[in-house]
Amino acid sequence: MKALLPAGTAQLVGIGDDAAVIRAPDARVVATMDLLIEGRHFRRDWSAPHDVGCKAAARNLADIAAMGAVPTALLVGFATPGDLPAAWARDLVRGLAQESARAGASVAGGDVSSADTIMIAVTALGDLAGRDPVTRGGARPGDKLAVAGRLGRSAAGLALLEAGLDRPAGPVAAHRRPQPPYDAGPQAAVLGATSMIDISDGLVQDLGHVAEASGVRIDIETALLADDSQLRAAAAALGDAGWLSWVLAGGEDHALAATFAAGAELPERWSVIGSVGVGSGVRVDRRSSRGRSGWDHFR
Amino acid sequence: MKALLPAGTAQLVGIGDDAAVIRAPDARVVATMDLLIEGRHFRRDWSAPHDVGCKAAARNLADIAAMGAVPTALLVGFATPGDLPAAWARDLVRGLAQESARAGASVAGGDVSSADTIMIAVTALGDLAGRDPVTRGGARPGDKLAVAGRLGRSAAGLALLEAGLDRPAGPVAAHRRPQPPYDAGPQAAVLGATSMIDISDGLVQDLGHVAEASGVRIDIETALLADDSQLRAAAAALGDAGWLSWVLAGGEDHALAATFAAGAELPERWSVIGSVGVGSGVRVDRRSSRGRSGWDHFR
Repeated sequence: MKALLPAGTAQLVGIGDDAAVIRAPDARVVATMDLLIEGRHFRRDWSAPHDVGCKAAARNLADIAAMGAVPTALLVGFATPGDLPAAWARDLVRGLAQESARAGASVAGGDVSSADTIMIAVTALGDLAGRDPVTRGGARPGDKLAVAGRLGRSAAGLALLEAGLDRPAGPVAAHRRPQPPYDAGPQAAVLGATSMIDISDGLVQDLGHVAEASGVRIDIETALLADDSQLRAAAAALGDAGWLSWVLAGGEDHALAATFAAGAELPERWSVIGSVGVGSGVRVDRRSSRGRSGWDHFR
Repeated sequence: MKALLPAGTAQLVGIGDDAAVIRAPDARVVATMDLLIEGRHFRRDWSAPHDVGCKAAARNLADIAAMGAVPTALLVGFATPGDLPAAWARDLVRGLAQESARAGASVAGGDVSSADTIMIAVTALGDLAGRDPVTRGGARPGDKLAVAGRLGRSAAGLALLEAGLDRPAGPVAAHRRPQPPYDAGPQAAVLGATSMIDISDGLVQDLGHVAEASGVRIDIETALLADDSQLRAAAAALGDAGWLSWVLAGGEDHALAATFAAGAELPERWSVIGSVGVGSGVRVDRRSSRGRSGWDHFR
């Protein structure tokens, strides 16, 4: 597998020793770990191994970006049944390497074990380049709320796959292989973001974490959400007009949501969708969201 | 669980954000990941959850020490069946926290998911404090070979458990909860170790990795191996005189083996057990070891 994993620029000691050694020029390292488990986070009949590798990398790399950091390296733990075809494992590794490279990082180490189910544990590391980390806890009343990246496409793709459809192709591809806007994370930090989060469980639910950590209320205005023809097409294919629920409650696109001071000037990719106020919780068009995910309420 | 996990001194942002932020004063970070899977790496009827937590932490922290680094933080991915008793998970976390603290680190983040089998993915991070990493590739002909920590006790404990015995207590405890000599790793680096490895798969097998990476032959002299009364007692309990096979081929004690220049003066804890020569592979008392683990040959 080592041949499939080119060394990255941050990698001083890579695969094949007791541990990897990675540059951390900032003298701090940002670190996160996520698990991806067959049957829970992916299905082999719905996703090719290359897609699973990309997705496993993307969900961790997006967490690094959401702190305002630049990804440097990945470690991968791969538990696999003995009868898994070697080509499946190779394509998974290629996907991990490709998505890491897209984010500027490399796979620097890991572990392989046998298991009854495929389980992929990924640790991503990143560098803050001298900036403060952007946590979930810094949003202030008066701030504006903005997002970079797509919302709802992965959820729309999952709904299509669950209905036995693989078209429209855009949302299905987005479900199989999310495309987080990695460089928007450090960009937001430079722009002075007061808080930031990776949208992995759904916009309303994840902003709930920001509201709680910051001690504020967050307001989303649906009129400000981008009209996405791919979501409308998916909704039409399913005979369902509920595309807004995908935007508000669908996770796994790994868009970034951040808050900025009211006067901050934001580039076009950071689209303002709401604001921060005094209080608690998340409101959509001034109505409180109910339930943990907001899904039922907005479906 | 967060209440069970005190923040460590290296931890700037801990559990509860998109990622942790850990001090890396050296401007490099040492990073490793290992998987621990129920039925393969532990059995719930043989090990208490606290032991499993300690062991999951220890095997990763030992890899950090084996690079000559000081552990700073752990990330833990925990996949668990829905019917796992909450007390089991709590005791696992306590074990992870306790062993981390013993090594000077803390649990700074992670992920939890449901799964059919218990899987624990641990990433350990560490700091080199300005020293070069001690890899597997620096052993030179003429060097002496030394070990710190115990050899063979975990394997003896496993053999006892497999035979339905839980005495003598020492080896059984060593199997359930290995005690790697963490501070011997940075100490070896300061003493000028030319190569180092954590003994996780067995002395002969792991030294084979050093021999290969360094392009040398490694000689073990059994007359120099410490006589361990606990191993003799375990062998007697099993009616088996083969305690040497545990020392040469038993893994999981996470002792450290390192090579040093012939003239290096070593403190007592670093016990010389052999030497490095021109050639390849690992020899025991001048006989070539056969097979991947050396187990069959020396049993």
